[in-house]
Amino acid sequence: MLDSFTKTIEALLEKKKYSSLRDVLSTMNEADIAAMFSEMPEESLPLLFRILPKDLAADTFALMDTDDQELLIRGFSDNEIKEVFDELYVDDAADIVEEMPANVVKRILKNTDPQMRNIINEILKYPEDSAGSLMTTDYISLRPRMTVSDAIKRIRRGINEAETIYTCYVTDDNRKLLGYLSVKNLLLADKDEKICDIMDKTIICVHTHYDKEDVAKDMNKYDFVTMPVVDDEGRLVGIVTFDDAIDVMQDEATEDIERMAAISPTEESYFKTSDFKHAKNRILWLLILMLSAAITGGILTKYEEACSAVPLLVSFIPMLMSTGGNCGSQSSTMIIRGLSVDEIKLKDYFKVVFTELRVSLILSVTLAVINGIRIWIMNKNFLISLVVSLSIIFIVIIAQFIGCSLPMLAKKCRLDPAVMAAPLITTIVDAASILIYFNIATRFFNI
Amino acid sequence: MLDSFTKTIEALLEKKKYSSLRDVLSTMNEADIAAMFSEMPEESLPLLFRILPKDLAADTFALMDTDDQELLIRGFSDNEIKEVFDELYVDDAADIVEEMPANVVKRILKNTDPQMRNIINEILKYPEDSAGSLMTTDYISLRPRMTVSDAIKRIRRGINEAETIYTCYVTDDNRKLLGYLSVKNLLLADKDEKICDIMDKTIICVHTHYDKEDVAKDMNKYDFVTMPVVDDEGRLVGIVTFDDAIDVMQDEATEDIERMAAISPTEESYFKTSDFKHAKNRILWLLILMLSAAITGGILTKYEEACSAVPLLVSFIPMLMSTGGNCGSQSSTMIIRGLSVDEIKLKDYFKVVFTELRVSLILSVTLAVINGIRIWIMNKNFLISLVVSLSIIFIVIIAQFIGCSLPMLAKKCRLDPAVMAAPLITTIVDAASILIYFNIATRFFNI
Repeated sequence: MLDSFTKTIEALLEKKKYSSLRDVLSTMNEADIAAMFSEMPEESLPLLFRILPKDLAADTFALMDTDDQELLIRGFSDNEIKEVFDELYVDDAADIVEEMPANVVKRILKNTDPQMRNIINEILKYPEDSAGSLMTTDYISLRPRMTVSDAIKRIRRGINEAETIYTCYVTDDNRKLLGYLSVKNLLLADKDEKICDIMDKTIICVHTHYDKEDVAKDMNKYDFVTMPVVDDEGRLVGIVTFDDAIDVMQDEATEDIERMAAISPTEESYFKTSDFKHAKNRILWLLILMLSAAITGGILTKYEEACSAVPLLVSFIPMLMSTGGNCGSQSSTMIIRGLSVDEIKLKDYFKVVFTELRVSLILSVTLAVINGIRIWIMNKNFLISLVVSLSIIFIVIIAQFIGCSLPMLAKKCRLDPAVMAAPLITTIVDAASILIYFNIATRFFNI
Repeated sequence: MLDSFTKTIEALLEKKKYSSLRDVLSTMNEADIAAMFSEMPEESLPLLFRILPKDLAADTFALMDTDDQELLIRGFSDNEIKEVFDELYVDDAADIVEEMPANVVKRILKNTDPQMRNIINEILKYPEDSAGSLMTTDYISLRPRMTVSDAIKRIRRGINEAETIYTCYVTDDNRKLLGYLSVKNLLLADKDEKICDIMDKTIICVHTHYDKEDVAKDMNKYDFVTMPVVDDEGRLVGIVTFDDAIDVMQDEATEDIERMAAISPTEESYFKTSDFKHAKNRILWLLILMLSAAITGGILTKYEEACSAVPLLVSFIPMLMSTGGNCGSQSSTMIIRGLSVDEIKLKDYFKVVFTELRVSLILSVTLAVINGIRIWIMNKNFLISLVVSLSIIFIVIIAQFIGCSLPMLAKKCRLDPAVMAAPLITTIVDAASILIYFNIATRFFNI
């Protein structure tokens, strides 16, 4: 659908039908406009953006790609910068400023009003992954002694700046957080009731330095649309909204997945990343794993004699290494994901190990029997099928033990468990597989 | 913090201090109570649950584990079932009913009021992964000709059943969706204004049979707290709320991650899954991959002569296979995640292939040079270091090509791209690596 829309827009633009263009754009949602903009040729963006109705323009701007934002800002007059940034919510403005090169930031800050400038500077001071850097300061706070009708008046006055009024927070004169109140409860209450009598005093909040991933997890746990953020003195300084929390969760999942494939996570999208950046994100782990695999190779040379004595032995190496690696990755993946969604905790270590041991017994015996029969039929050599089957049993058990233990060890050492995923586990299990296999083989074949 | 709380609760329970227990529980959030319940011994659950204040009880019940819910229901009197289910939001009630065994479902449906029963039955009729199965029918709809003050009266009347009033939907007499209105705009408007004059007519909605993953993606894209769901005739039949959308996104990420590690995805948590279920979820792919790896072994036997002639050749097999596998998994992971978050589309195929080719050139040359030098220094054998380095270059290029192509091919064939992840790619690349390596080696060594 978006594709055909893009074509319509392009045609109208070419024919210079600007007023129809504005009418068409006015019917669209800002997210769709931003998505469409990212598919348009760069040179048409400034014109298209200027055609947008003013209220849509800022909302669309907040949702555009960083590159396109920079392009537009560079073409903006000082006045246009002021117009757009004054309309933005401060958290969106801070996010944009964070991504811009220094000279662009200077121009933006010069052209925003002093209050916005101060808030942006404040938000930029928080560590990159903290609740403080994620929050918005556009919220409505009520006082405990207000009546419901005072509160509604206060909300109506402040509503234009506030990104959301799903939940109102109640603070004292020192901005200390006392409780909260949903708009639902506000609408239900009698208009003369005091806020302090109807507010919910169960305070669940996060600190400005709290990790943004944990903020998102907490919001998911409590089904919060907004989460209040407080400073060291318990003063309310901002709120995190659910849309930013969802983005954090998506980014964290992507980061986990990339790390699990031995890629250094990046925040840029696939096509926006340069070739050298792609290579840089992948090369470190490739080198580490390549050199570790050389160790497995070294171990293998110790068994050169055995290989020469029974050449058939070599042909089972890929199968054993691959099976061990796969079992290890399956275990480590289950544990990494479990740790990441808080289903598995560090104290569950022994419970996890016993579960994996029991599962590995079932798996290893099944695989050993099926493979043993296959080899016996195909090679008519009972001894070799016995050696391979026995090896599979030991390899699978060891692989699952390593696979479930290393992520938890990483977590214990405060490293990201996702580092202990398939590639590293596979490399370690490969070496173990070779050792197990040839130890069993040399015994049975008396080599 | 939760741990110490659990201990307090256990101590109070043991000392039969039920009224203090109720006071303590009343200060807690339902999500925390549900988390605490999951750590308590099963036999204390019915008592604890009965101690909960009534309004907390239903909210807590909705958040508990399925097993604990079943345990409680089995112990409930008919009247207790009625009390709890009448307090639940219908989407939560439908979710619970969906997970229960048939005899429990029968008791539940017998003891809920007819209206709730009809709605539950209605929701259960939708396909499992559809918007219909995810939605709630507890929402407030307004009529276009209402004034703002009529609307507020209507909201106050309906507010107790409605899960959320962040957004009100406007429908005509046939329940056809006409537009929407945020509570924010409602509060800002003059009380005599007509709803049809202030509502937003840009209708963004999903169909009851729309895939729930796409619903979640759309809600994320538009930053919606709720998404309206319509039937074939465009009539509003329910809304999906953001908390359910977040859960869907988390589940989908888990599913992708599991599938990428060759595990059949399951909705159960790690510890709730039985050993045999764990084994069943993993065995199929292990078998497929084990048998495919046997093919690589078969290829290897063809080069037995080469291995006997230059025994050192064998020792580089693990390193080459592992490097190829890792490069292939890195590419496939980038593409699978890109496809899953809609950053990469099928039509981008050639763009992706060229990107991966350029990246693979950088990576392969770097790896080949470093490894070539290492082998030359360690083995003092220029020819073998040349053979291995040349092999690395070809293997890495082929691996990345396979790694980026297969997930897109899967998507093209309407399969889940996540199936084409590390394990399968590694197995395919392993065979290719052996072929490339020995083809180069036999040429250079004239074997």
